[in-house]
Amino acid sequence: MEKRIYNFSPGPAVLPLPALEEAQRDLLALPGTGISILEISHRSKAFDKIINQAEANLRTLLAVPDNYRVLFLQGGAVLQFGMIPMNLLRGTGKTADYIVTGTWSKKAMDEAKTQGNVRAVFDAKDTNYNRIPKQSALNVDPNAAYAYMTSNETIQGVQFPTEPEVGNVPLICDSSSDFLSRPVTVNKYGIIFACAQKNAGPAGVTIVVIRDDLVAKSPADLPSLINYKLLAEGKSLLNTPPCFAIYMVKLVTDWLLRDIGGLAKMAEINKLKAQMLYDAIEKSKGFYMAHAEPNCRSMMNVPFKLAKPELEEAFLKESAAQGLCELKGHRSVGGCRASIYNAMPVDGVKALRDFMLDFAKKNA
Amino acid sequence: MEKRIYNFSPGPAVLPLPALEEAQRDLLALPGTGISILEISHRSKAFDKIINQAEANLRTLLAVPDNYRVLFLQGGAVLQFGMIPMNLLRGTGKTADYIVTGTWSKKAMDEAKTQGNVRAVFDAKDTNYNRIPKQSALNVDPNAAYAYMTSNETIQGVQFPTEPEVGNVPLICDSSSDFLSRPVTVNKYGIIFACAQKNAGPAGVTIVVIRDDLVAKSPADLPSLINYKLLAEGKSLLNTPPCFAIYMVKLVTDWLLRDIGGLAKMAEINKLKAQMLYDAIEKSKGFYMAHAEPNCRSMMNVPFKLAKPELEEAFLKESAAQGLCELKGHRSVGGCRASIYNAMPVDGVKALRDFMLDFAKKNA
Repeated sequence: MEKRIYNFSPGPAVLPLPALEEAQRDLLALPGTGISILEISHRSKAFDKIINQAEANLRTLLAVPDNYRVLFLQGGAVLQFGMIPMNLLRGTGKTADYIVTGTWSKKAMDEAKTQGNVRAVFDAKDTNYNRIPKQSALNVDPNAAYAYMTSNETIQGVQFPTEPEVGNVPLICDSSSDFLSRPVTVNKYGIIFACAQKNAGPAGVTIVVIRDDLVAKSPADLPSLINYKLLAEGKSLLNTPPCFAIYMVKLVTDWLLRDIGGLAKMAEINKLKAQMLYDAIEKSKGFYMAHAEPNCRSMMNVPFKLAKPELEEAFLKESAAQGLCELKGHRSVGGCRASIYNAMPVDGVKALRDFMLDFAKKNA
Repeated sequence: MEKRIYNFSPGPAVLPLPALEEAQRDLLALPGTGISILEISHRSKAFDKIINQAEANLRTLLAVPDNYRVLFLQGGAVLQFGMIPMNLLRGTGKTADYIVTGTWSKKAMDEAKTQGNVRAVFDAKDTNYNRIPKQSALNVDPNAAYAYMTSNETIQGVQFPTEPEVGNVPLICDSSSDFLSRPVTVNKYGIIFACAQKNAGPAGVTIVVIRDDLVAKSPADLPSLINYKLLAEGKSLLNTPPCFAIYMVKLVTDWLLRDIGGLAKMAEINKLKAQMLYDAIEKSKGFYMAHAEPNCRSMMNVPFKLAKPELEEAFLKESAAQGLCELKGHRSVGGCRASIYNAMPVDGVKALRDFMLDFAKKNA
């Protein structure tokens, strides 16, 4: 078999090996059916069991209250950027308040502008998105249609350590790149959503956890596939869902429950992994520099620069030669970025940490 | 390994075994990468090669002219039912003309009603959707925003043998259940689209072939993921696409080109398979009855009833016991239905034909 490498890609990203192995084993025929998961009817009992188990696993892991629906949708987080204002802003006469902490919250706000009035209640552009707002400075309009945040900015590596307080305004959260990485308090949110391809599965399915009162707000002039009310009524089976991607979400959440033991355990491991890298950066005495301020450094994406940018190419080349791949940073931040999602083994992060220390010593 | 059965499901449906086997072999790591197709970055060179090859295969198979884009989208055909009128009807002051030949064209028309004025220029409801319009009776408004058809109605088994003439009005075609089953003349269409899960791949990707002048029409107030113009400019990579489903489309179209030899060959085989079943129905002297009129019987979906409906349960039970599965018809038509897409082997259809003849003899 092809040797697998340590994949630090920001997404699509590394998946748990046991999930991949089970998918591979059963790819020609699901046990007891004689049909591949790629061929099976979404109306079959076998698929019913899969989608129900995927939902049950998510409800267990996140402790989702009964007054929230769990939807499996398509189109990635970016379709949600449009659906949220189409369902909850357009025609209300209200404004939506966006907390802009990086590329993805900015993009979500720009998409919402096509549907109604939006306002940036915080925008960290002046410091190239390296920080989150102080709670005391966050003035969300109590009449806003909703407040919007991105719990973890994949590109800038800026993560909210806890939910901001927004009063009674529904808080909408794009959790794409830290979903299932730690426990969350679902009832602090009106909607919490995530594309799967970081921590939950492969690209092709988006998980939307939405409170019943928001489901009820969808206007009647929205086609069914972008209408939360109809999608929720159809229980994600209004039309053929992305069956395979949902099956992978089941396998990944099986792994989280069975092999990891839930999100509190997962969060401990993630913290340990991130700390290894941030410590290496701190100890490098300026050879490496983290992008985000210490109070909001992401446990998932660690962007950093080399004080001598002329060494970056060598850093990327030498790390790749050691099987540590996809470490190039996003052009808007520059430098390097290590994405260390749930499925990145501790050993992978150790190998990267050791490489970083060694590279710094050699090039000091 | 689990024994595979003959799967006559209307979709998700049987896939070519060589495509499934290649996907299984490489599932833990794509050759030369060390990364699974489920984990690989959509911005990587390896994925670039895959999506470009999938598009090239489709362009070759369908002889797609240069003034058409080939898009890989999400949301299934049903999202297209909404996107088409959102992009091409809303705000134009025009009407869209729908040719209603079954469940799916009816559903598409209903979704379009949320966006503007629509008109059924043909509706076969009075005969429970068993026929197509005569060309002479089809009066499409020359000022219509577009004319809409479903080339093959999956539930009713009604297929257009050739494209209807609609003058200079853009013809939009849902080809979900006969896509890649036969050659088509792409330049007769403004848009021809298909969800993948019948003939092109697994559920989770929708292929949209759209003419440049229609791409240009998208209004600016549509969020990017439902905006043809932005999706086309982004070359299906505006955000993370459903990488695995696109990879499967590549493998399935590889098979069509390499093992079958193109769509003319595929059409011959499909015709042969369908003829076997329709002949068995005709020869049964009324024991079995086809749903559709002879001039529009589908080569893909063969719905039929038993003259003695009380035998249906036994038919389904006994056929399933012989590994001939998913033959229950849709409730709106009743009876049975054999879906015999590209990947259903001739031997599978022969086995079904023999079972049908045998069952008819035993129960005459």
